[in-house]
Amino acid sequence: MARIVMKFGGTSVAGTERIRRVANIVRAQAAGGNQVAVVVSAMAGETDRLVNFCREANPLYDPAEYDVVVASGEQVTAGLLALTLQSMGSKARSWLGWQLPVKTFSSHSNARVGEIYADRLLESMEEGEIAIIPGFQGVSEDSRITTMGRGGSDTSAVAVAAALGADRCDIYTDVDGVYTTDPRIVARARKIKYIAFEEMLELASVGAKVLQTRSVSLAMKNEVRVQVLSSFVEDGSPPADTLPGTMIVSELEMGKLLEEGKVERQSVTGIAHDKNEARVVLTRVPDKPGAVAEIFAPLGEAGINVDMIIQNVGRDKGETDVTFTVPQNELARAQAMLEDKQDALGFGRVITDSKVAKISVVGMGMKSHAGVAATMFKALAERGINVQAISTSEIKVSVLIDEDETELAVRVLHTAYGLDAEEPAT
Amino acid sequence: MARIVMKFGGTSVAGTERIRRVANIVRAQAAGGNQVAVVVSAMAGETDRLVNFCREANPLYDPAEYDVVVASGEQVTAGLLALTLQSMGSKARSWLGWQLPVKTFSSHSNARVGEIYADRLLESMEEGEIAIIPGFQGVSEDSRITTMGRGGSDTSAVAVAAALGADRCDIYTDVDGVYTTDPRIVARARKIKYIAFEEMLELASVGAKVLQTRSVSLAMKNEVRVQVLSSFVEDGSPPADTLPGTMIVSELEMGKLLEEGKVERQSVTGIAHDKNEARVVLTRVPDKPGAVAEIFAPLGEAGINVDMIIQNVGRDKGETDVTFTVPQNELARAQAMLEDKQDALGFGRVITDSKVAKISVVGMGMKSHAGVAATMFKALAERGINVQAISTSEIKVSVLIDEDETELAVRVLHTAYGLDAEEPAT
Repeated sequence: MARIVMKFGGTSVAGTERIRRVANIVRAQAAGGNQVAVVVSAMAGETDRLVNFCREANPLYDPAEYDVVVASGEQVTAGLLALTLQSMGSKARSWLGWQLPVKTFSSHSNARVGEIYADRLLESMEEGEIAIIPGFQGVSEDSRITTMGRGGSDTSAVAVAAALGADRCDIYTDVDGVYTTDPRIVARARKIKYIAFEEMLELASVGAKVLQTRSVSLAMKNEVRVQVLSSFVEDGSPPADTLPGTMIVSELEMGKLLEEGKVERQSVTGIAHDKNEARVVLTRVPDKPGAVAEIFAPLGEAGINVDMIIQNVGRDKGETDVTFTVPQNELARAQAMLEDKQDALGFGRVITDSKVAKISVVGMGMKSHAGVAATMFKALAERGINVQAISTSEIKVSVLIDEDETELAVRVLHTAYGLDAEEPAT
Repeated sequence: MARIVMKFGGTSVAGTERIRRVANIVRAQAAGGNQVAVVVSAMAGETDRLVNFCREANPLYDPAEYDVVVASGEQVTAGLLALTLQSMGSKARSWLGWQLPVKTFSSHSNARVGEIYADRLLESMEEGEIAIIPGFQGVSEDSRITTMGRGGSDTSAVAVAAALGADRCDIYTDVDGVYTTDPRIVARARKIKYIAFEEMLELASVGAKVLQTRSVSLAMKNEVRVQVLSSFVEDGSPPADTLPGTMIVSELEMGKLLEEGKVERQSVTGIAHDKNEARVVLTRVPDKPGAVAEIFAPLGEAGINVDMIIQNVGRDKGETDVTFTVPQNELARAQAMLEDKQDALGFGRVITDSKVAKISVVGMGMKSHAGVAATMFKALAERGINVQAISTSEIKVSVLIDEDETELAVRVLHTAYGLDAEEPAT
């Protein structure tokens, strides 16, 4: 007997026919005597429809009322899944965010999940009732509906799993796991069986969009084992004792799996790419203490996320070029802000380039394997790929390259780190 | 300064453009310093969409989960109207059924409204905030969402008005008031300025479907003045001090209005018709004590609503014919039940006819005017209309006639009671 939280995204519950398929998967999990709670998203397209209504009603919408409108999408799916399970003979009931309650704090429309009172939920699950919980929604201190921002249902699921002390949180999505890299780029990409939270976080934050980053952080903090797997499986569901998807586990558990030989020891676990970066070069920045801080302070205050930073060695006496990256959708704002302050900051010109890509290799193994970065630079140089900037963390090395070379670089690195599968994926 | 509850139905809030028009009407009421609460339905078509989802998910749906799904329609409209009012510079917020709370009792999906806790609502309204309340929904004893059955938003509005001690409950709908009869049948039908609760109840129950019957009962019980008026008025709204629709008032207030000469004294206030009745004749029923009771007891137990009953004088020795009416949609069930018990009850045959119509004349004035029924029978007889059955109450006379003569009968009676307007309605 295990206690399992299952989460289904918008495409998995788009329409009553798909909800029926989800119900079959849920019943298969419950059949083994497992206690099951299910977290559901709104039907695909529904949240967009509701958000559009809000925008039409009030372009500068009050996030509290926006939450009242958009939270209804998940409420509908939760009720429908409960009804469907009942029609198949299962005991099931929905638990809305305000009913548990799922306490949230901080701002409306982007609330952070706080405490979840799971006593009644546990009681009902122990009596064999399948609990259905609308994702994405909670309730504020003053008893108003809140939502957790797009993709918040992943976070809801992990939070519910933490509150229930669940053995596992299964995130059903439209991919069947986390791959060593994007299989659309590398046909020989391999599905990763086990990945550490830290690795998943780095991959998620650099563009491997399988899980919402916040949900991975929460899982790591609460040590919730998260499995990513596909809801588009054959009729019924995979047996509960196999591992059809990717399991995200703690560093401790990963260590044990390595010792037991269940996981192969490697330096790099996965390779991600991100084309949403833009490069900014400020020329002829005065080479004096504090100059660089003066540049980045106003960007930070404006909430613009500066990532890679390179300060070239001064070319002319007392001057230097500063290169950094920002998200592409914040480039215009960053550029306008810098040009406004050109005189005050005393630089020459702002040169921008959004035709760049960030390629990252990620792996806990880097901590013990030397030469990971060197392998990267060598492999890229051999194919004539020019590295424009570099950033590193303990378990990640990222480089900025020409956007046109993205796919080439990913393939070259996938081979260089020995990640290619023997057979291409079907 | 007045405290006013306004209710808008599904066609009035179908889409953000119409919600904007509703917001204008609400703002016009609030502009005079009035305290305003607004009760809204789901967008037209939305409840049907949600009900269909439930039927697809589970034809024998659990009403508790059905309520979770369908209550979302009103929630969306409430949030959108609050957003729209805010975009126009008004202070506004939504109050969901569980937030006030609107306590309900009895069964899910057809709950009856109980106590409404209006303290916080009043406080917010006194601070100049427009309160938006989704109609149709409440919360059960065990904190689950309930709904009040189709048309329940009228009842919500009256209940909120009662809880707030409102001066008036304005029901905005797609007609501009209550008429002396259906204007599609009688071009010279007149809009009634004031009508008593009792009259409105009789008219509603015999087919003049402007307001849900339950809402009228609730208004009568709590003495809430209810006004029916159209939301499809010119830009903006009628000034608050005129009476653009029909005001439904207590017998006491009606008496005062008569004394003051604001209302004309007449015997009949309105004429309703109902084509949803069916006639059942049982031939050769044993003419002995208890025989008729034996017929109607099982129908009553099955929830079949028997209306007019006529027991003919016995033709043959010891036998009689019994005629009665049931709603058309219950005819098949009634017939099957009676034929099942033919031997036990000992009657001859069951003859049914659904090509009948019930015509009712309604008016408080009947209490003091004699000869109302006589006028009816005479007027119908002069046009050769045969009366198949008769039933009366203190303020109503109903006759059953051939369905084909419905419109003729309504026109004849409208003239006979002096209800024709001088000019046809435009």
